[in-house]
Amino acid sequence: MTTYTYTKSQALFQRAAKVIPCGIYGHFSPVCLCPPTDYPFYISRAKGARFWDIDGNEFIDYMCAYGPMILGYQNEIIDNAAKNQSELSDCVTGPAPVMVELAEYLVDLIPIADWAYFAKNGGDVTSLSLMVARDATHKKKIVLIKGGYHGVAPWAQTSLHHGTIEEDHEHIIRIPWNDIQAFEVAIERYPNDIAAFMATPYHHPVYADNEMPNENYWQTIEALCQKHNIMLIVDDVRCGFRLDIKGSHEYFKFQPDMICFSKAIGNGYPISALVGTESLKKSVANVFYTGTYWFSAVAMAASLAVLQEMKKIDATSMMIEKGRQLTRGLVDIAKTYGFDLKVSGSLSMPYIRITNDDTQMLHQAWCAECTKRGAYFTPHHNWFISTAHTDMDIQQTLDIANEAFQAVNANY
Amino acid sequence: MTTYTYTKSQALFQRAAKVIPCGIYGHFSPVCLCPPTDYPFYISRAKGARFWDIDGNEFIDYMCAYGPMILGYQNEIIDNAAKNQSELSDCVTGPAPVMVELAEYLVDLIPIADWAYFAKNGGDVTSLSLMVARDATHKKKIVLIKGGYHGVAPWAQTSLHHGTIEEDHEHIIRIPWNDIQAFEVAIERYPNDIAAFMATPYHHPVYADNEMPNENYWQTIEALCQKHNIMLIVDDVRCGFRLDIKGSHEYFKFQPDMICFSKAIGNGYPISALVGTESLKKSVANVFYTGTYWFSAVAMAASLAVLQEMKKIDATSMMIEKGRQLTRGLVDIAKTYGFDLKVSGSLSMPYIRITNDDTQMLHQAWCAECTKRGAYFTPHHNWFISTAHTDMDIQQTLDIANEAFQAVNANY
Repeated sequence: MTTYTYTKSQALFQRAAKVIPCGIYGHFSPVCLCPPTDYPFYISRAKGARFWDIDGNEFIDYMCAYGPMILGYQNEIIDNAAKNQSELSDCVTGPAPVMVELAEYLVDLIPIADWAYFAKNGGDVTSLSLMVARDATHKKKIVLIKGGYHGVAPWAQTSLHHGTIEEDHEHIIRIPWNDIQAFEVAIERYPNDIAAFMATPYHHPVYADNEMPNENYWQTIEALCQKHNIMLIVDDVRCGFRLDIKGSHEYFKFQPDMICFSKAIGNGYPISALVGTESLKKSVANVFYTGTYWFSAVAMAASLAVLQEMKKIDATSMMIEKGRQLTRGLVDIAKTYGFDLKVSGSLSMPYIRITNDDTQMLHQAWCAECTKRGAYFTPHHNWFISTAHTDMDIQQTLDIANEAFQAVNANY
Repeated sequence: MTTYTYTKSQALFQRAAKVIPCGIYGHFSPVCLCPPTDYPFYISRAKGARFWDIDGNEFIDYMCAYGPMILGYQNEIIDNAAKNQSELSDCVTGPAPVMVELAEYLVDLIPIADWAYFAKNGGDVTSLSLMVARDATHKKKIVLIKGGYHGVAPWAQTSLHHGTIEEDHEHIIRIPWNDIQAFEVAIERYPNDIAAFMATPYHHPVYADNEMPNENYWQTIEALCQKHNIMLIVDDVRCGFRLDIKGSHEYFKFQPDMICFSKAIGNGYPISALVGTESLKKSVANVFYTGTYWFSAVAMAASLAVLQEMKKIDATSMMIEKGRQLTRGLVDIAKTYGFDLKVSGSLSMPYIRITNDDTQMLHQAWCAECTKRGAYFTPHHNWFISTAHTDMDIQQTLDIANEAFQAVNANY
């Protein structure tokens, strides 16, 4: 295979750097790609599980826009639902009927949900859930997991981040994942002050193996929350619908008070949702929370179609099975070169790491060699599998991975 | 004219109330409409300056989705630009080239802008601007105007709002509009602590006449900010492009450090932008700030088309002229019934109030009578004029207003 070059991406990035901070900022920033010169920066089109960059290079995409793509780019069923709605209305001076249909569908689908509230970003609803918890409990403190990501609001960042101030974190308590005792210590220290415990359904940080909950972890957390009137919030923005169509808490068998969804819920159409139990409906109604585009009908029509389609095709099982097929293949190929490839997290969004090299330089090099051959892998973030990844995509990925192992093996 | 009834809206609202907090929340909540029974709740389609509710009633829309609609619903030029992009890509694993084109266009268009940063909600960029100001100045306090609206983040709300805590407002100083002395007092009290002064270009609160800046207000604020290293931020989310295509600061002839845009910038496609001066580019690059849908190409392609079209047709002058035509007509008709109709703010987004009745009950009744006849007026928020409002729309509105004055006159 010839490896890709990115002349046009590099040139456009130089132009961008003049008028956009960092050229590309946030989670798409080239600083997240190692080395950036081995990755494409600008995408010209996407279809199914693939995208093409502006240099004409073709990639099988294992980042899926960092989560929202779940049924394939340019999915006809979803895009038609969106198109049909867009011919009627999108962002107008009031909601469309589809808002009610979508809320009803979510309330039917998610066992704990008695209501649904829609916004745009995942961070819109993680922030809302904290406000609801504070209103409901008249308490201030929030317990989060160290390394957990809940968006970019100042409370969700750490004191290390520029632009935040210490007061943003005054009532945030960060404890390690899977550490019941740390939660008990926090409760003991602030017996009447903790409004909420928020975590992702399993721990999926960047730059570290992902971790499933220990046995009875969630059940113990749930019991502690109930005992101390602490609202239990699941941030299912990234993992939602990739473990269980009814919410990841169903997979782990516990009952949160609120769940935050986004990403997969819209297959790329911008929407997020907070759902919760009847007892919190008054508090969420108390909070004033809104946005210009939060009622836009097209994203809601798309989301309804996404949920229906995911259910119809059992998307979750399909993605877990495809993830199994891919990761088994990769692990086996790695072995033939003497490399140990560790897979953690859900198979539908696996975190992959070559363990042979503690510096991660080898792992980065291998991901870059794969990307340069058309299998887009970032090294320090979980990947995503979609229902659009075909057997052929996976076989081609394994062939690419094999050649990439040869390439890094030669230099290792 | 027969007046409208809203049987289907009311019935769907009852269904909604079971699964959505408040049935409809936020700025679309029926509690903002007085009385709610005189207003439609659900919209089935929209075109030009009109929308149709699910009962089949037709309205000339003077709320324009609360700002984003500026070139008409279903505008072919904008929708075609969006459609062409959507056939290539939208939300993928990296930005599309149109992101660079849009940033370049904004930097060319807005005189103070050396860079542009894109997000979804207006509140995304007002919050970002504060983080940038804090990073750049290493100071914490923010001066805002009493009654000014900058979104729903806890810092932007007041202590009266549910879900916020006192620490959210610890570094927020609210001063009255047009009050230079209050700003000087704040500076005197916190000589080394004020990071930013943020305000809308003129004061457009709800439930109160809108107020233009006094002569030299902005120039004095600018000088004070420069002297004390306070970042001057204009929240042009609502007013942007409705006073001057180059930003409302150009209309008032002053130079902010950052400007927040959203609403009109996308004609309903979800996008917001922060632009700023070269000296802040490093700070905005320092801040970690991102979102799943912030790089979506369709809204960016739409926004580029909106900016080009607004410039081409001189949309701002057109809206101000249409606003003049509408408000002059309304004031004249009001007079013939002995009512004084006060118009404040920009003619492209006028705030209207009947002054004869301090309780505002008469004004509410008149707005409701207009709405029930097909001119959608909310009583306590500025209205919006778009380029899609035709002479016929305005004439029909004046006819409706006349009949509504008759109706309220009979009961007054």
